[in-house]
Amino acid sequence: MKIGIDVGGTNIAGGLVRNDGTLVFKTSVPTVTKNGEDGLLRDICALCETCRREAGSHTVSGIGIGVPGHADDTMGIVVRCANIPFKNTALSRYVTEKTGLSCHIGNDADAAALAEVRFGSAREFENAVMLTLGTGIGGGIIINNRIFRGCNGTAGELGHMTIYADGEKCSCGRRGCFELYASATALKRETLKALDAHPESKLRQVAKTRERVNAKTAFDAAAAGDAVAIQLIRQYTEHLACGILNIINILCPDAIILGGGVARQGESLLAPLREIVRDKVYSTYGTQTKLLAATLGNDAGIIGAAFFGE
Amino acid sequence: MKIGIDVGGTNIAGGLVRNDGTLVFKTSVPTVTKNGEDGLLRDICALCETCRREAGSHTVSGIGIGVPGHADDTMGIVVRCANIPFKNTALSRYVTEKTGLSCHIGNDADAAALAEVRFGSAREFENAVMLTLGTGIGGGIIINNRIFRGCNGTAGELGHMTIYADGEKCSCGRRGCFELYASATALKRETLKALDAHPESKLRQVAKTRERVNAKTAFDAAAAGDAVAIQLIRQYTEHLACGILNIINILCPDAIILGGGVARQGESLLAPLREIVRDKVYSTYGTQTKLLAATLGNDAGIIGAAFFGE
Repeated sequence: MKIGIDVGGTNIAGGLVRNDGTLVFKTSVPTVTKNGEDGLLRDICALCETCRREAGSHTVSGIGIGVPGHADDTMGIVVRCANIPFKNTALSRYVTEKTGLSCHIGNDADAAALAEVRFGSAREFENAVMLTLGTGIGGGIIINNRIFRGCNGTAGELGHMTIYADGEKCSCGRRGCFELYASATALKRETLKALDAHPESKLRQVAKTRERVNAKTAFDAAAAGDAVAIQLIRQYTEHLACGILNIINILCPDAIILGGGVARQGESLLAPLREIVRDKVYSTYGTQTKLLAATLGNDAGIIGAAFFGE
Repeated sequence: MKIGIDVGGTNIAGGLVRNDGTLVFKTSVPTVTKNGEDGLLRDICALCETCRREAGSHTVSGIGIGVPGHADDTMGIVVRCANIPFKNTALSRYVTEKTGLSCHIGNDADAAALAEVRFGSAREFENAVMLTLGTGIGGGIIINNRIFRGCNGTAGELGHMTIYADGEKCSCGRRGCFELYASATALKRETLKALDAHPESKLRQVAKTRERVNAKTAFDAAAAGDAVAIQLIRQYTEHLACGILNIINILCPDAIILGGGVARQGESLLAPLREIVRDKVYSTYGTQTKLLAATLGNDAGIIGAAFFGE
């Protein structure tokens, strides 16, 4: 048994994971940031203790913690996190001191990727890249069944691959980053634009109100035959394919796994994507890279984190 | 001792390489394509025999052959090559039958990358990416001191990463590929354009004639203080940095090695590149990825190929 913790901006989820990747117990607490680093550290340790109690007489061999930011597992330090008051926080040491268990840390997108490759959608493969289409695009690269972290633990920032060198400004300081065009946020933004430009389209009908527009709106309107929505989804798919083709031409992984809300569209997203990839991939040999939807959902972050140490 | 063969469009170079990477003998023959696949296979085997004779009483443990195209080492087959009449050619089997030596095959850019990581500019590192700035941009990815080939041997096509999704059409079928902006060919093309647009610049003086313009022209004119050339080099460097930043944000390798003629500019290219990378890299932690110029020159293709089997 292992403990996996997934630190998110809203909740901290924790669970007890069997060595075969089965999540046998899951719980969560709200992410409270007002008590700063100390408060969060205490909450994380309390969650670990809850999981450990649940293990009963089973041995817990260690703890893994995924954070939405940059964690250096070698040093045991969370360098920085988005929206969470960790900065050069010695998370591993703290948790080990309080719990007596070994602790490994890492990025939450890496955790999800590891879980999908070991136990989820890509479990027959050893080299895979996961893209989580959400607010931004999170990325995780698995090579030889292990997280590829690069030289200072910051590999896999696939959302910050420029695809339009003269495009929109990104918060990262560059222009035209992949996530500005292919994240759920990007799809929502474009849907709102289209809804304003084409009040006659079914987009408004589907969303009911402007405030309820989300990344699903355009897919639903497209499924209902709306021409504006179909064009919107076509453009979104082209952008997503552009980043995916870059990844295939660079790494040619066995699989690319799509996670996050948008990926729940399943084959209606994946089938057109595969078509573009088949048409545009560099190798005349074709590509053997499989495009897959993630299957573990939000549990992937807990399950993958539990295996950070292996 | 090993034999390394580097099959190029103009020459086939071969050499005898010690286990420590030292090239102790080197020779070459012109690449003759008029006799088709059979003629080339005979020439390659003859070159292997020349190298083997040179080894004298030393044992030759195997042969490695790099080709400018897609070689599947597992199958021993050259799938396809640019400008060379190999197509689904069972190169390894042929060479082994003729020479009695084991034979491994691979991509020439992968060979160069492997040589630079094992014995050249990046020998203190284990994870590195090499970009060869030439007619196009060749790429090789080394992970854990070995070539990373991806699922069907076609990883590392870094020149065909899109950086302008709405940019110029590339021969690969996509738009705005990195090599259209940052190869030696791209720099030469832009130099010719600038020379026509600015007849007053020092570009013409440096090149003497329009026909003699090459990738070095703009660097030389910029060094002589020519404003047009300085702007040209700045733009070229920005484009090169764009691809390099993508690679760092994705893989965060220990080093990125630049090879090919343009890289001979050394620090006058590398120093401004490092500045852009430092400024724009995603990680707030900064980057530890070193930008290096290749040091083995054309020998890298022979030396690296010799180690394909390891």
